[in-house]
Amino acid sequence: MKSLDQADLCIRNVKVFNSCFREFNQADVYVKDGLFLYIDQKRNGEVNAKQEIDGRGRYMIPGLIDIHMHIESSMVSPEAFCNYTAGNGLTTIVSEPHEIANVCGKQGVKAMIDSGSKSPYDCYYAIPSNVPIMGRDYETSGGTITCEDMLELKEEERIICLGEVMNFREIIEENDSEVGKFIDIVHPKQPAYPLEGHCPALKDFDLARFLYRGIQSDHCTHDLEELKQRFSNGMFVQLQDVMITEEVIRFVCENSLYEHFCFVTDDVLPDILYRRGHVDALMRKAISLGMRPEDAIYCTTCTPARRMNLLDRGVIAPGRLADFVLLDDLNSMRIAGTYKKGRCIFNGNRQEEKKEYGLNGLFEDTLHSRKLVPEDFRIYVEGEDRTVKARVMEVNPYSNRTDEVFVQMRVKNNELLWKQTDCRLVMVIERHGRDNRIAYGFACGSVLKNGACASSYSHDSHNLIVLGNNEEDMLLAINRVIDMHGGICVALDGEISAQIALPIAGLLSKKTVEETALDFEKVRKAFDDQGYEHLNSIMNFTLLSLTCIPVLKLTDRGYLNTETFRIEKLYEEME
Amino acid sequence: MKSLDQADLCIRNVKVFNSCFREFNQADVYVKDGLFLYIDQKRNGEVNAKQEIDGRGRYMIPGLIDIHMHIESSMVSPEAFCNYTAGNGLTTIVSEPHEIANVCGKQGVKAMIDSGSKSPYDCYYAIPSNVPIMGRDYETSGGTITCEDMLELKEEERIICLGEVMNFREIIEENDSEVGKFIDIVHPKQPAYPLEGHCPALKDFDLARFLYRGIQSDHCTHDLEELKQRFSNGMFVQLQDVMITEEVIRFVCENSLYEHFCFVTDDVLPDILYRRGHVDALMRKAISLGMRPEDAIYCTTCTPARRMNLLDRGVIAPGRLADFVLLDDLNSMRIAGTYKKGRCIFNGNRQEEKKEYGLNGLFEDTLHSRKLVPEDFRIYVEGEDRTVKARVMEVNPYSNRTDEVFVQMRVKNNELLWKQTDCRLVMVIERHGRDNRIAYGFACGSVLKNGACASSYSHDSHNLIVLGNNEEDMLLAINRVIDMHGGICVALDGEISAQIALPIAGLLSKKTVEETALDFEKVRKAFDDQGYEHLNSIMNFTLLSLTCIPVLKLTDRGYLNTETFRIEKLYEEME
Repeated sequence: MKSLDQADLCIRNVKVFNSCFREFNQADVYVKDGLFLYIDQKRNGEVNAKQEIDGRGRYMIPGLIDIHMHIESSMVSPEAFCNYTAGNGLTTIVSEPHEIANVCGKQGVKAMIDSGSKSPYDCYYAIPSNVPIMGRDYETSGGTITCEDMLELKEEERIICLGEVMNFREIIEENDSEVGKFIDIVHPKQPAYPLEGHCPALKDFDLARFLYRGIQSDHCTHDLEELKQRFSNGMFVQLQDVMITEEVIRFVCENSLYEHFCFVTDDVLPDILYRRGHVDALMRKAISLGMRPEDAIYCTTCTPARRMNLLDRGVIAPGRLADFVLLDDLNSMRIAGTYKKGRCIFNGNRQEEKKEYGLNGLFEDTLHSRKLVPEDFRIYVEGEDRTVKARVMEVNPYSNRTDEVFVQMRVKNNELLWKQTDCRLVMVIERHGRDNRIAYGFACGSVLKNGACASSYSHDSHNLIVLGNNEEDMLLAINRVIDMHGGICVALDGEISAQIALPIAGLLSKKTVEETALDFEKVRKAFDDQGYEHLNSIMNFTLLSLTCIPVLKLTDRGYLNTETFRIEKLYEEME
Repeated sequence: MKSLDQADLCIRNVKVFNSCFREFNQADVYVKDGLFLYIDQKRNGEVNAKQEIDGRGRYMIPGLIDIHMHIESSMVSPEAFCNYTAGNGLTTIVSEPHEIANVCGKQGVKAMIDSGSKSPYDCYYAIPSNVPIMGRDYETSGGTITCEDMLELKEEERIICLGEVMNFREIIEENDSEVGKFIDIVHPKQPAYPLEGHCPALKDFDLARFLYRGIQSDHCTHDLEELKQRFSNGMFVQLQDVMITEEVIRFVCENSLYEHFCFVTDDVLPDILYRRGHVDALMRKAISLGMRPEDAIYCTTCTPARRMNLLDRGVIAPGRLADFVLLDDLNSMRIAGTYKKGRCIFNGNRQEEKKEYGLNGLFEDTLHSRKLVPEDFRIYVEGEDRTVKARVMEVNPYSNRTDEVFVQMRVKNNELLWKQTDCRLVMVIERHGRDNRIAYGFACGSVLKNGACASSYSHDSHNLIVLGNNEEDMLLAINRVIDMHGGICVALDGEISAQIALPIAGLLSKKTVEETALDFEKVRKAFDDQGYEHLNSIMNFTLLSLTCIPVLKLTDRGYLNTETFRIEKLYEEME
């Protein structure tokens, strides 16, 4: 007998997804040595199998693939993340670890890779390309990633692409940059090496300039015209949650653009992961908006694999990796089992191993900040008592954009009396051990109304951030974050309302996904209860310091206008 | 001014092919440093260009790409081939040089690469994977390619895939083989490295066994069921001329399979190249059979590039290689110009440089054979005078299959009197300097009726082959081939009817495509005049020795039944 006559596993009589015709066919599927051996539609039993699974009534699709996401957003270790998300049908991810890189540099990336190697499925990584995001002039990060670092990381076996190039201005303005150097070294020799993009709002010649360097994908929010330009200019489009709308789904379906896009999660917070799911939820959402299940499956398996040159997977066919998911039906799409290289990694019942997760004990003491004292909250202003125009970030409930507005404030006894307005005070405190400098700003609009919130998770440099309507609660919240070696904390009336500890790099919990999600949910409830009105309140809070979103943001260096790239003063004198 | 504001070239006001939407849009197209810079549909002139081309009324499509072909079939040097076929719109080819490898081994492959480096466009190569085609037991080749050779060739910059694995039996029967060893070394580490297949008639579990090893493409002739199985099993299908039929085109169009196949030429003889064209002709043929031009263009540019991981081309978009073709219109598809990296390599008027082409003087003396003498044509048979059943290859006009038939022949004075039948004598003479052994066989059916034909081009080992109805013409023809250091010669009534010299490895002319084609046409006419009735007479003749086609073939070792792989006797005794 030839060795291939003896398979390891047979899934009998199952409806198998065919990626070419995008349809299901009844077949017996044989697996050998981790690969699909034979999709036997004739079902005449010419192959033996050591083990059999009855697939009657079930649907078999390729393992799900998410090629643009950040594990850090789910605030757990890669190991915990992957163990859990096997239950979401994932069998391959490409995570871009720029959050930890901003705190711990390339050693952080390597620790993530190491933790991901304990995953039951393939946990690949992208090279963080903009650390710190806008360069070193605008904020203090704990780590930096140079061109040399990127070249070193590229040699890591689990690293398969350049992560989203976020500083698109640098590229289109043809400025010298670390990532620009890297691209110029790698792209001419390896034009197939994926260079991932991030270019909200870019259009026309600006978009062309960005692509000219060799970048070929984008996953940002766009209106339909921008989206059309991306497809039209040969880009591979990665649709994240906010982009999966009826209008967009109609557009891609009417134009049969399936081979040119996939679904990606980008950032999934712990409670969303726990309550709603992962890229499987996006697939279901697209179907609910009118996409045929067969097309949605295709765009969550075959096309992301191809974009990442992972040509050994994403398709159920002889010789490909036996990564697959069994579904109870195509309506609920309930996942009855997930298999990686033919091995069951999720049996339909979620059970997380309770243990202390971590990155091998690394990065558990990264908050290099003294405790704050009441004096830190007093905003000193030189000169006479007067009224000034304070610069304020106006937050709206539906986006992470912050507009620059001015609010009149009294100066009395060299102190800015912000509490007489309805502005909340925001402080960003350098925490990477450089100088613990404190930058002050204000926020108005839909941010937290009562009490205070504080976080060591604050994009992209992850300095400490605290926001509130009174110094006492702010002091309580931020010092609790420091005590926890990182985390998010909400306080009201002199008491902690909720908190989550994120002791690894100030970003990640040491707990399971479920435990982390339940902690996080309490924090989110406190945000809600204390009046933070936003689609994604905690996320919005941690983005008040992110310098790639318009218009006015606060870093440890002070206010930055992210359109002009000018550092702005906290207040202006009245004319 | 930023440097990108100054382009090198602008093609103004042209109808540009968009590969995503598979449609044409009016635009100004800017090129800089060999790459597309900007496809400006708004045409508001914000970019400057040093040079302009008026594209009004014209269509701009990506440069054509042929990823499965053998330059040797066109019997000219790679340099001459590429210079000429720029006029067919080609800007990238992947040639599989197993013909020369069978004569000259890996040094032959390297000489082809060297000649291809003088091409105006990208001349890539595939690693010849079965040299000699069925191993060393069935024929004598001049060169062999071992696993080690393949690994060495893989490191060549211009080599980008493993060429068609033709000995599919070896693979599915799990026998040890050189190419099997190579695949097992390369595929697990580099699953995206293209492994090209060749698997006529394979279906069901046999096809699955073939694919299980990692092979993912095929370009052979199939009925619709076989073709469907290939698509269905995740293969990339390469449609060659004979497969481009109304039925197949209807099937791929009705199922929108465009992303899963491309057009390839495989073997184009010199006169066909000259009179009909190259892959451009296949594109036109598909359109004439009902495919939309936009879809046919897509499958001759974008999909072949992707199959070969050449992600820097095949699409007109910012950052991709500025390889393009200007067409006068979509009906004639007359090529008005071909551009490689923005440089014009064909201006609409064909002009070949007349010079002596070659492979740097290499392989010009590869016919290690003595001249034949009349005694060589006498077939000696032991024993008494009697009648025997001679084994005969029956040739039919529509395929290259040869059936095994038996014809009664008289033995008299120890000589086989074949001329009393309507069989023609076929002789294969070892010519690689080993032993000059001669194998005898017979052919009947639609082969040459009168006179003789001889060739040093005879698949796959390229020993000498001669066929005829009389010894005198056979002797004349074969000795002329030897005098020319290789070539094809036809003789009738004691005179040469036509000849073409192929002095390089006995395979390639030193002339231009036009000169070679005109010589070749005369030979083809002589084949026709002397009664060779076949769709592709010369090709059919040179395939009488090809051991991967059923059923009975003749090598220098004698008859081989290519289904049982038994060496068969020239005749059997009567029962």
